[in-house]
Amino acid sequence: MAKKASRPLVYVADKPDTGPAHAITREKIKAAAKRHPGVFDKVDIVWGLKPKDLAEAEIVLGVAFDPLTLRKDAPKLKWIQSLNAGVEKLAPKMDRSFTLTNASGLHGPKGGEFALASMMILNNAVQFFVGSQRKREWKPVFTTPIEGKTVVIAGTGGLGQATARQAKKHKMTIIGVNTTGKKVPGFDRVVKAKDMAKVFPKADFLVVTLPITKGTENLIDRSLINRLPNHCGVVNIGRARVMDYGAMVDRLRSGTLAGAVCDVFDPEPLPADSPLWDVPNLIVSPHAGVDDGSVYVDRGLDIFADNLKRYLSGRKLRNVIDYDAGY
Amino acid sequence: MAKKASRPLVYVADKPDTGPAHAITREKIKAAAKRHPGVFDKVDIVWGLKPKDLAEAEIVLGVAFDPLTLRKDAPKLKWIQSLNAGVEKLAPKMDRSFTLTNASGLHGPKGGEFALASMMILNNAVQFFVGSQRKREWKPVFTTPIEGKTVVIAGTGGLGQATARQAKKHKMTIIGVNTTGKKVPGFDRVVKAKDMAKVFPKADFLVVTLPITKGTENLIDRSLINRLPNHCGVVNIGRARVMDYGAMVDRLRSGTLAGAVCDVFDPEPLPADSPLWDVPNLIVSPHAGVDDGSVYVDRGLDIFADNLKRYLSGRKLRNVIDYDAGY
Repeated sequence: MAKKASRPLVYVADKPDTGPAHAITREKIKAAAKRHPGVFDKVDIVWGLKPKDLAEAEIVLGVAFDPLTLRKDAPKLKWIQSLNAGVEKLAPKMDRSFTLTNASGLHGPKGGEFALASMMILNNAVQFFVGSQRKREWKPVFTTPIEGKTVVIAGTGGLGQATARQAKKHKMTIIGVNTTGKKVPGFDRVVKAKDMAKVFPKADFLVVTLPITKGTENLIDRSLINRLPNHCGVVNIGRARVMDYGAMVDRLRSGTLAGAVCDVFDPEPLPADSPLWDVPNLIVSPHAGVDDGSVYVDRGLDIFADNLKRYLSGRKLRNVIDYDAGY
Repeated sequence: MAKKASRPLVYVADKPDTGPAHAITREKIKAAAKRHPGVFDKVDIVWGLKPKDLAEAEIVLGVAFDPLTLRKDAPKLKWIQSLNAGVEKLAPKMDRSFTLTNASGLHGPKGGEFALASMMILNNAVQFFVGSQRKREWKPVFTTPIEGKTVVIAGTGGLGQATARQAKKHKMTIIGVNTTGKKVPGFDRVVKAKDMAKVFPKADFLVVTLPITKGTENLIDRSLINRLPNHCGVVNIGRARVMDYGAMVDRLRSGTLAGAVCDVFDPEPLPADSPLWDVPNLIVSPHAGVDDGSVYVDRGLDIFADNLKRYLSGRKLRNVIDYDAGY
């Protein structure tokens, strides 16, 4: 597609090995254009990784580019729309003259369900049963229903709110944690991150939904993890480095934590020789919990279409990354 | 406790190796007596397995006795209250002059939750992830939310209804199966057992909650199992022999069924050399899904107390087993 002078060029920056659930294909763009008439026909779109196209691009859709050279590679570039929620790999390396937007909110329906599924696994001792199954051991454990139990949700953004909505369906008590302690709908109570230690002993479940930023790196450290009760189950659908996995693993190995379901690791993919594969009562989910395979790109393109409309009319974009905060 | 002439003797028939979650202890009876004043003080209660006590008993609470010799062993016995829901090991062997009551309804809250937990496991491909984990393989699979998907629940009794209530929280479509096709609250639709073949192709999930009776033995046979779609997940919290596990395993091994969570087996405990431990995408739960460890006996004693009150005043008991039907 040749660029016309008057039309902004959108450069689709998809990794060539992106799987079908996440690839930004021509078909998906075409479908998005139908859902959002009068938006996509105001731009030209190019695919691929050709330097000369990138040099002409005003907008980048996707994240397959080198953030360190982007200012030089794309002198006309103004705005980058990521279809991920977490932008920790890009944001710290980027020239701050770019507007960077993410796809926060995209993971809600599937991510909230995965968080609930994980809590239900832990509440029903399934992490223990699959461990016994590996050893061909029949070891019943009788647990109690989840209703009325307490979940501490670290992070009250899109994923945290979606988790709260699912937990409320099962009449759980929901304590949120965010930077300022400001109230968020769907949470029974929200505490400041610095007061987390006070609520950890109440947690039947801890669900971590935090992005990784300067402020969240190792936020849930060993001393905090050691405040969780022995019967607590831990779920991480945010980012791995937010938590001290070593401290969690120590408690799992000593049998002083009920179990954990982790969807995020550092690095990913988890290397075959990682000791994490064999930790008792730890379920390893391969960063697949929060993405809805059927609609991931479609929902992402809905966010992009809305932002593109705003961009073309000079309005404020949604989901703009604050480079200082990192999300 | 010595029996007084005027007071019925209740014989507690608990196996000596019954674990803490299921043992009918003096403390639990005392607590039940407090919850139901004016009932337990009208009977005498003996524990243990002494033949002379059984010979005097009018009521048996529990199932640790030999059903084949019970008429001879307990000439004065009129009524047996089981704290189980399934009575397949007793009913076919018992003298029909006994009134046998079960604890149907007891498993609802925990059992419905376990059924939902199992569907959520299957919906989020966790059965596949734990299999990959055993092989230290990072293999993401991206699935879609459970909302709007269809569950076929075989059995519309206590467990089936509890499963329906949980499924409705997640806006699933719920098709029940029972003998007559009679409507049951909480189900969007109920079909007769003989019409099951028509609804199996619609099942995103099949949840089996049936007791084992002459009518349900191998009811879900190979031809029915072969009508389930490839993406279907199977859950069995009823009894193993209701289903052809061989047919299910064939489909799991050939990768033409998404997965299964089975809480029931034949025999139990599942022997260490059973091939079922290693079937791909099958989670083995050791018959622990539906019992609430904290309140199982308490709730059972509530059922017993209500029946005892009815018995003492000559009224009709609840949960009476129909020896012909087997439940």
